[in-house]
Amino acid sequence: MSIYEQIIEEADRLQPQLQSIRRNLHMYPETGWMEVRTTSLIAQRLAELGYTTILTGRDVCKAEERLALPSQAELDEHYADALAHGAVQPWAEHARDGFTGIIAELDCGPGPVIAMRFDIDALGVCEDTSDEHLPAREGFCSTQPGRMHACGHDGHVAIGLGAAEVLMKLKDQLRGKIRLIFQPAEEGVRGAKSIAANGHLDDVDYILGNHIWAWEQPETQVGMTTGPTLATTKLDLIFTGKACHAAFPDSGNNAMLAAATAILNLQAIPRCADGATRVNVGTIHGGTGRNVICDRVKLEVEVRGATTALNEYMEAYARRIAENAAAMHNCSCEIKVMGSCGSVVNEPDMIAHCCRLCSEKLRLVVQPPTPKASFSEDYACLADAVTAHGGKSLFFFTLSGLTAPNHAARFDFQESVLSTGVKVFCGMAADLMDL
Amino acid sequence: MSIYEQIIEEADRLQPQLQSIRRNLHMYPETGWMEVRTTSLIAQRLAELGYTTILTGRDVCKAEERLALPSQAELDEHYADALAHGAVQPWAEHARDGFTGIIAELDCGPGPVIAMRFDIDALGVCEDTSDEHLPAREGFCSTQPGRMHACGHDGHVAIGLGAAEVLMKLKDQLRGKIRLIFQPAEEGVRGAKSIAANGHLDDVDYILGNHIWAWEQPETQVGMTTGPTLATTKLDLIFTGKACHAAFPDSGNNAMLAAATAILNLQAIPRCADGATRVNVGTIHGGTGRNVICDRVKLEVEVRGATTALNEYMEAYARRIAENAAAMHNCSCEIKVMGSCGSVVNEPDMIAHCCRLCSEKLRLVVQPPTPKASFSEDYACLADAVTAHGGKSLFFFTLSGLTAPNHAARFDFQESVLSTGVKVFCGMAADLMDL
Amino acid sequence: MSIYEQIIEEADRLQPQLQSIRRNLHMYPETGWMEVRTTSLIAQRLAELGYTTILTGRDVCKAEERLALPSQAELDEHYADALAHGAVQPWAEHARDGFTGIIAELDCGPGPVIAMRFDIDALGVCEDTSDEHLPAREGFCSTQPGRMHACGHDGHVAIGLGAAEVLMKLKDQLRGKIRLIFQPAEEGVRGAKSIAANGHLDDVDYILGNHIWAWEQPETQVGMTTGPTLATTKLDLIFTGKACHAAFPDSGNNAMLAAATAILNLQAIPRCADGATRVNVGTIHGGTGRNVICDRVKLEVEVRGATTALNEYMEAYARRIAENAAAMHNCSCEIKVMGSCGSVVNEPDMIAHCCRLCSEKLRLVVQPPTPKASFSEDYACLADAVTAHGGKSLFFFTLSGLTAPNHAARFDFQESVLSTGVKVFCGMAADLMDL
Amino acid sequence: MSIYEQIIEEADRLQPQLQSIRRNLHMYPETGWMEVRTTSLIAQRLAELGYTTILTGRDVCKAEERLALPSQAELDEHYADALAHGAVQPWAEHARDGFTGIIAELDCGPGPVIAMRFDIDALGVCEDTSDEHLPAREGFCSTQPGRMHACGHDGHVAIGLGAAEVLMKLKDQLRGKIRLIFQPAEEGVRGAKSIAANGHLDDVDYILGNHIWAWEQPETQVGMTTGPTLATTKLDLIFTGKACHAAFPDSGNNAMLAAATAILNLQAIPRCADGATRVNVGTIHGGTGRNVICDRVKLEVEVRGATTALNEYMEAYARRIAENAAAMHNCSCEIKVMGSCGSVVNEPDMIAHCCRLCSEKLRLVVQPPTPKASFSEDYACLADAVTAHGGKSLFFFTLSGLTAPNHAARFDFQESVLSTGVKVFCGMAADLMDL
Repeated sequence: MSIYEQIIEEADRLQPQLQSIRRNLHMYPETGWMEVRTTSLIAQRLAELGYTTILTGRDVCKAEERLALPSQAELDEHYADALAHGAVQPWAEHARDGFTGIIAELDCGPGPVIAMRFDIDALGVCEDTSDEHLPAREGFCSTQPGRMHACGHDGHVAIGLGAAEVLMKLKDQLRGKIRLIFQPAEEGVRGAKSIAANGHLDDVDYILGNHIWAWEQPETQVGMTTGPTLATTKLDLIFTGKACHAAFPDSGNNAMLAAATAILNLQAIPRCADGATRVNVGTIHGGTGRNVICDRVKLEVEVRGATTALNEYMEAYARRIAENAAAMHNCSCEIKVMGSCGSVVNEPDMIAHCCRLCSEKLRLVVQPPTPKASFSEDYACLADAVTAHGGKSLFFFTLSGLTAPNHAARFDFQESVLSTGVKVFCGMAADLMDL
Repeated sequence: MSIYEQIIEEADRLQPQLQSIRRNLHMYPETGWMEVRTTSLIAQRLAELGYTTILTGRDVCKAEERLALPSQAELDEHYADALAHGAVQPWAEHARDGFTGIIAELDCGPGPVIAMRFDIDALGVCEDTSDEHLPAREGFCSTQPGRMHACGHDGHVAIGLGAAEVLMKLKDQLRGKIRLIFQPAEEGVRGAKSIAANGHLDDVDYILGNHIWAWEQPETQVGMTTGPTLATTKLDLIFTGKACHAAFPDSGNNAMLAAATAILNLQAIPRCADGATRVNVGTIHGGTGRNVICDRVKLEVEVRGATTALNEYMEAYARRIAENAAAMHNCSCEIKVMGSCGSVVNEPDMIAHCCRLCSEKLRLVVQPPTPKASFSEDYACLADAVTAHGGKSLFFFTLSGLTAPNHAARFDFQESVLSTGVKVFCGMAADLMDL
Repeated sequence: MSIYEQIIEEADRLQPQLQSIRRNLHMYPETGWMEVRTTSLIAQRLAELGYTTILTGRDVCKAEERLALPSQAELDEHYADALAHGAVQPWAEHARDGFTGIIAELDCGPGPVIAMRFDIDALGVCEDTSDEHLPAREGFCSTQPGRMHACGHDGHVAIGLGAAEVLMKLKDQLRGKIRLIFQPAEEGVRGAKSIAANGHLDDVDYILGNHIWAWEQPETQVGMTTGPTLATTKLDLIFTGKACHAAFPDSGNNAMLAAATAILNLQAIPRCADGATRVNVGTIHGGTGRNVICDRVKLEVEVRGATTALNEYMEAYARRIAENAAAMHNCSCEIKVMGSCGSVVNEPDMIAHCCRLCSEKLRLVVQPPTPKASFSEDYACLADAVTAHGGKSLFFFTLSGLTAPNHAARFDFQESVLSTGVKVFCGMAADLMDL
Repeated sequence: MSIYEQIIEEADRLQPQLQSIRRNLHMYPETGWMEVRTTSLIAQRLAELGYTTILTGRDVCKAEERLALPSQAELDEHYADALAHGAVQPWAEHARDGFTGIIAELDCGPGPVIAMRFDIDALGVCEDTSDEHLPAREGFCSTQPGRMHACGHDGHVAIGLGAAEVLMKLKDQLRGKIRLIFQPAEEGVRGAKSIAANGHLDDVDYILGNHIWAWEQPETQVGMTTGPTLATTKLDLIFTGKACHAAFPDSGNNAMLAAATAILNLQAIPRCADGATRVNVGTIHGGTGRNVICDRVKLEVEVRGATTALNEYMEAYARRIAENAAAMHNCSCEIKVMGSCGSVVNEPDMIAHCCRLCSEKLRLVVQPPTPKASFSEDYACLADAVTAHGGKSLFFFTLSGLTAPNHAARFDFQESVLSTGVKVFCGMAADLMDL
């Protein structure tokens, strides 16, 4: 039996178990840098599967490169809660203080180094609990009000653990190294940078990433995009002026005016002939009272671009606007980078490889590659670190019939994608090893 | 002994007691429509003094004219807390559900109807607790974090109760009616309208109001302004659009853009040749996430004008801006009036009366009247109701040496203003009765 | 000799004559709706060539659909000048009063109706007269200060007359009808709509259009684009308020504020996930004096979109902004459509046809079709009228080595494109007739 | 006969002649820095009257301090026209190239130095020619389309020449020096600064200025204001970016966006608790074409303030806005001062002096001084130069019944103000000499 037949058989066999893992995680979603229970369960399972090289804590993410870390108070509060909800020691302890994420390695002797990325964090969304929503109907809804796996990362973890199991089982037939990266804080594009900063991609020949994705034709199983994802930068802009009583407007420095000027001008950045761009001022909070000249406004902003260059144009323009809008009104503006990633591009030969593999060896239905990709992926940071030294990257979709859009309260997916994902990850590994 | 000599003697005698009332109130400040304990203590005291006509509850403020009422949950929570802090029954019960405030009447037979206004609410300010701050040093600081009598209304209540006592004592020498109005929710100019709406000013010949005011010359005791206070309207603007993922900006309706356009244009309202105006967007809160098109922004806005006409120009312009800024971006804008009052003008003859009275009969040091008055006073609603039918109004200051500005965490005043206030209120009453 | 060999031979033979026509036109460029001399020379030549069906005057463009017509005074002044510069009667007389443009028809019996579009107007650009500029060096620069054929339409006319000559010569070998449309007022996308409105496209099976285009590889001769051109709408926004002395700002209605609000918000229109869009406020003029509240501002604006739907989204949003920005400041806004066209899309089979024809039968070097097309073309109105009833359209480029960009003072092209253009037009006609 | 009686008699005698001078000037109005004919006629008359100290040309205004000078072409063209309309040599020659204005001096021995300011320029207004307009009816309308004495400076010149004649006649009874300043370019507050810069006010003890002013009570003859005039600065803001085709918006630098941001923020400058301020963006011109990113916008702006400090606050804020609005969009902003003057304040003792003089010695009807003064006057520069070293200033109005407002096409005044003005100037001089 070929290795691809074995992969198919093993992945299909694991399907019930992957579904169970996914549902367990779904019930206790954890947001970025607080994936304590999630990390501990992953680590526990990898250890059970016989992985001996398991990096945790500071060995995964470089401490000072972790973007938009929650406050220590939030971290502490969640840590206690995670323990109360089944986080496993000693792994939980390692993941404390925002050091979530796991990297495991399987060394199969000489051959290529192949990295696989699985993101593990959840979102600050309130899950729908009505009967039309399958997780509610089948009893595995989020138990945490205001937190939800609304982007399928629970499935990504299950796929990762499935791939870990299959690869371990077939290890004698493999060659090279497999590096399994369970990445924290993908949402907000905050975590990948700190993994790359620790050098985990420096020796990687190939990196594979995946996202579960809704698709109109339910029978289609795998997809790829020929176009780039959007590079993005997340900025917090904090305008600071001087408060005073509103009866004496010229005695203060009005941060509200600076912020309003910035918002209109951010949205008015001249847009680019060379490709898609985006800008959004998503949230605003400022002022202390109706009759007080506003002395502080905070904006949460993001820019995007179809290429890293377009994103950089948008970011540089946004910074110039923020600084000058502040200066215009005698205010200052602090600009904080809260997240950042480049654009993911699949090279044609990796796409061709994968299409052939899926249809010819894995018996999966592949959607012909399309150019559209109006989203951003933190995976870009990892892919960039690989391609920077000549390695190759592929980001593919495991397709599921439509439910609600990503990030919505009723987001869900067909759990059959789990074994599909395991097949593609393992199949690509075998293929890249020329097996 | 003339009635003025008696007033002086009585007021001086009451000084220690007024100070004690003021300090009691200072320790448990209550914000607008929640002055449950304050109201109950005032009512209790008026009853003790022998007042038999005491209006409470719905008889004071017309229910549906109370502006910017707190939520029922807030009212309930505070009611329980007020009881726990010494609110007295049955008066507390009457003041429940936002029916604070008291009106008491002293009927001395035929003669003029004279109303006196004392405002009773506190502010959402955190009191300074350092030793430089006298209330801290002498142990009567606010016990409620985030609430403070930072505008001297605790002193106004003490003056009102002092006047009530003196007038009751001298009642056989008086003629006409005295109506003592202890007004809730002066801050934000929210309460007076509902008192006027109940008709309490319809038969009033003279109305007197007072504010404790910081002054550079500590020896000066009484002041008056010849210029108008600023008419004002407090508006909440709530812009509502439609949310969507920021990668698809044209699928939403961007309330952030509507708000920013409104802010800049509000500040740019063409200003008036006929007198001072003000506009302020004090606070802003909006949006749910950085990568979501903002679907809701709330602004707290105020406009002011040296005359009611100027204020109306500003308000009408502000409304037009809000509506069109919303429509421009396919959003809607809800406009809520959270407070409103006209301009207070002292007529020259009332000023002259009071100056003569203070210096000649009450032996008080009077500051020559000045035109400056860059503030707003809810008292205007009451004065307007009186002057509308030909009555007269006087608003005077009881002056105190400088500490910190009004509304600041270290605001304080010289408690000697308390007996001064009693003297002016009672003296003016006697004077207006031609005694 | 095949018909394609005959076309090649005839076109090459005409090259010197086409060059001479082009240079003649280049010296007296005429802007939209004023192409009096140009129209008369075209008509004169078509008559000489034996064309008997020649439509002029009101028969070409529907009077009331002509967009952004110059004033009668301008039309009159130019008419006199055109006569003085060699316009030929009676054709000039027909073209008077903004009725420029010519349609000629060649009836070759049963077969397809094939339309060819040649645009004839010039631009308001001042031509460079330095020696580095070939028209200057060789003595055929514009003689009209401030007017220039800076977009190659002089060449388009020459190509059209060349095609007219070749087709007339080969008419016995042809079948079907050839309709030659010499379109006025392409710049600003103003003229095509009125031609379509006269029904000239209603029976057309195929329409062909062409633009001379600069290309990096000078040896390449023909190109086509698979992507759409940008649909566009040109709007004039005229804000009207009320003037008054600047010392009394609230006595006027400030059109300057309305215009500034419109500009920022126009640029801030939330942009589209579905494709490229553009917006530009190109010019602004307003106000009568520094110390006068501005009562009138005129903006020249354009929006564009990769599809007609995207352009309609931009236009509708722009109109909403203009109206609300005006209303916000008690002003009005007149919105005038000054030009409008949809998006040109080449169907894959027409592209394939043309590529094959050029390389296999016409021995021309064809650039592989590319998706980029960041410009707008009035031709879209004609193509839409053809495809609306099932006809087909092809818009191709005759490529020239780089000089300066289109619309620049030093724009020029290699005159060899003239015979190339003739070959493609005539070759496509023969091909579509299945010859 | 007292000197005051002599003044009254002489002034009344001159009335017909003053009226004739005024009407002559009214027919040929000249705008700032181009008062060639006006200057020459004044000089000619002063010489005829026996004045021997007559400064002209560069001796009047310091060359480099002349604000907003017309172009040399405009100066040249007007010079020729002035000669053709009766300008007198050699004085016209002296006034060439923007060196208009005259200073004459009458030395009467020891005593105070008293300056009198008469402004001489006209406005760019088109005079009404209907029969309701007296200058039209009586045949002395402006002969120059687009230029008009719509602010009464023709009257000011007549008053100045009248005073010159009376003072010369009475010179033996006077003591001290009289300096008659015929100032150019008062409109736009452009000329006074350059006169002060030449030191002409350094030794002045008293300076007197006057404006003809419309008043409701036609019998009132003289008025004064106790409040300040508005200090003002006139700024041209020129935003420069980079043009490019509108299909490639990110290739240019958009000056239109910079200008729109500046306009909204200029109007939104937080206004002052300390007194009246104004801001106006009066005119805007920019851009070269609808489909070109705008590379240049020019704004004509003015700010005003009730005090020089308030005006400086407005100007500094406006400059900060302009610079940052430009920088925000990668543009630059040139800021040119086109006019500037401080606030004119009449000291109470000068007001009292003048009131007494007018009513007691000159038998004129004086309007009780009022605080309102919502206009700006270039005279402030001269007054400031006098008060800077302890001298005193008085600015008074010669009142005329109402016609149309200043600067309107139908502005006119009762010519009886001319002899009134002569009386006040001469009377004040005598009074200040203690005669």
